[in-house]
Amino acid sequence: MNATQTVAVVMAGGRGTRFWPRSRNARPKQFLAIVGTETLLHQTVRRLDGHVPPERIYIVTTEDLAEETRRMLPELPPENVIVEPEGRNTAPCLALALVEIERRVPNGVMAVLSADHWIADRDLFLADLDLAVAHAAGHRELVTFGIRPAYPETGYGYIESEGEGPVLKVCAFREKPPTEVAIQYLASGRHYWNAGMFVWTLADLRAGLQQHAPEVLAPLDAWVQAGAQPGSLAAAYHLLPKVAIDVALLEKAATVAVVPARFRWSDVGSWPAAIEFQTADANGNVTQGDTLLLNTRDSAFFGGTRLIAAAGVEGLIVVDTPDALLLVKKDQAQSVKDIVERLRAEGRSDLL
Amino acid sequence: MNATQTVAVVMAGGRGTRFWPRSRNARPKQFLAIVGTETLLHQTVRRLDGHVPPERIYIVTTEDLAEETRRMLPELPPENVIVEPEGRNTAPCLALALVEIERRVPNGVMAVLSADHWIADRDLFLADLDLAVAHAAGHRELVTFGIRPAYPETGYGYIESEGEGPVLKVCAFREKPPTEVAIQYLASGRHYWNAGMFVWTLADLRAGLQQHAPEVLAPLDAWVQAGAQPGSLAAAYHLLPKVAIDVALLEKAATVAVVPARFRWSDVGSWPAAIEFQTADANGNVTQGDTLLLNTRDSAFFGGTRLIAAAGVEGLIVVDTPDALLLVKKDQAQSVKDIVERLRAEGRSDLL
Repeated sequence: MNATQTVAVVMAGGRGTRFWPRSRNARPKQFLAIVGTETLLHQTVRRLDGHVPPERIYIVTTEDLAEETRRMLPELPPENVIVEPEGRNTAPCLALALVEIERRVPNGVMAVLSADHWIADRDLFLADLDLAVAHAAGHRELVTFGIRPAYPETGYGYIESEGEGPVLKVCAFREKPPTEVAIQYLASGRHYWNAGMFVWTLADLRAGLQQHAPEVLAPLDAWVQAGAQPGSLAAAYHLLPKVAIDVALLEKAATVAVVPARFRWSDVGSWPAAIEFQTADANGNVTQGDTLLLNTRDSAFFGGTRLIAAAGVEGLIVVDTPDALLLVKKDQAQSVKDIVERLRAEGRSDLL
Repeated sequence: MNATQTVAVVMAGGRGTRFWPRSRNARPKQFLAIVGTETLLHQTVRRLDGHVPPERIYIVTTEDLAEETRRMLPELPPENVIVEPEGRNTAPCLALALVEIERRVPNGVMAVLSADHWIADRDLFLADLDLAVAHAAGHRELVTFGIRPAYPETGYGYIESEGEGPVLKVCAFREKPPTEVAIQYLASGRHYWNAGMFVWTLADLRAGLQQHAPEVLAPLDAWVQAGAQPGSLAAAYHLLPKVAIDVALLEKAATVAVVPARFRWSDVGSWPAAIEFQTADANGNVTQGDTLLLNTRDSAFFGGTRLIAAAGVEGLIVVDTPDALLLVKKDQAQSVKDIVERLRAEGRSDLL
């Protein structure tokens, strides 16, 4: 075997309406600078600086976002932005990445990352990444990252581990649990959030898919054998089942390892989550842009070029964009979804 | 005496920062559509439709607002917009109006109105105006309008009346009272708010100023006698004492009458006052522009072209303009002044 070459595959096809009005159809979460001053996509790529060279960073996204993704990341070769003909969940996405990359970096170890997650503690992240890469290449196992639960979240899948040390054995993947089960997971010390980040050799990904989910790989292999014509990818891709890589591969594989993350992580699922990871001022306010705050507490102001002046405001999230303004109480952030639904029902596609 | 010709003099030189960010130096309150869909200036002029012809409606304003005032009121002869060289309070303002108008409408009866007050019940207003004009012309008295107090306001002057009937005798003008006195005034049934609206013949205004405040009139008379050159008005005007007409004339005059207003009136002194006179929806919300409200109560949204979406908001005033957004709790509306002060202190004149 040649020297290990780490390849990063950043999944960047996400949609999501929870960051409306900043997020729109043409501007999903990964394109937004909602935590910090850089977009989550930029942060994801920059986090690899000096660790994975640009020519081995790949982004998988959908057709409508490809051009903007290339524009935002001029340091990447344009062909490293791999275009999914349509969104069909993560197993097809990664199978496509596999057939695109294995021809270029045959001995690569693939690190699967998300374009729209927040990660702090870059050095710890890179150290954990190295650990996972070494384990995947050395032990030829599929490796996941596990996030130590901070609270009994019921919206994530859990990874149940056994053993000790920096790399643990996965004994089960657990579906999103009801609250009482999530509380047990939290207490066990052996359960981790499944953050959807993985490391494996390209060869092991291929072998695993061939064994456990051949229907996700075969149409793409046939497409490659027929010359990998861009014009015929859509037809092949449309044959792939819409399935997550966790279900198609990881839950079925005999041996999966988990690296308990030492870095801080969030999937930044809502405006309150985006606030949580930012430094607040003495009054508990988080601000972006031009603000003038009097007697205002525990609020967040995502401003643009306009001044936002507030007096007597408490517990409010304010998001200012050129064509829409959002005001939402922190404890009612789930209403953002309802607002977007309402706009959709009213046919206001200019705002979506 | 010839037939009575009513002349309306609309004082429109007001500034005021309490409606920031809608109100700016170049866009004072009278230029704003904060109550209803028309500006307060337009409402003031339209209220006289069919009652005082446009050629007898005069607007007194300052130089920087004159052009915009003429543009907004194309139905008025441009020369009916009388330009104060500088703001020197209401006595000089009305003295200037006097010397400008008495040459054109020698037998006129002058109704002094404010450009930035809100008045409902137009028919009652016009009936009260007729009553005041008839009294001023027939009894040759100075006439004021009195607003029946709705609560013990300490920020207004009061008119103390005696007698009965639709026109009462004024026995005293009372300064802004402390609360306990305001409560007595409220209870007396004889005290009215001084709304700063007056009716008198031009001849009586001249006679009154000559007797009680000649220093307000003499420099202007000299200016007229010297040919009323526009270029030399500023120098004459600058000689006039800065004094209110109430102090210069009304408090000194032997006989003043008051017409208790049957119409509803407000000087619209703050954003909450502007809300008070608008029809709220079932949740107590007042809206202007494009809004989408979920679980939102007792709030006001003064929007522009952008959508304002709110969820879980309560008791908030939101004012949206192209370059500044205001969010202020209803019970802290006095903070708007502080915001403007802060902007001034920070030299942000683009926002003032």
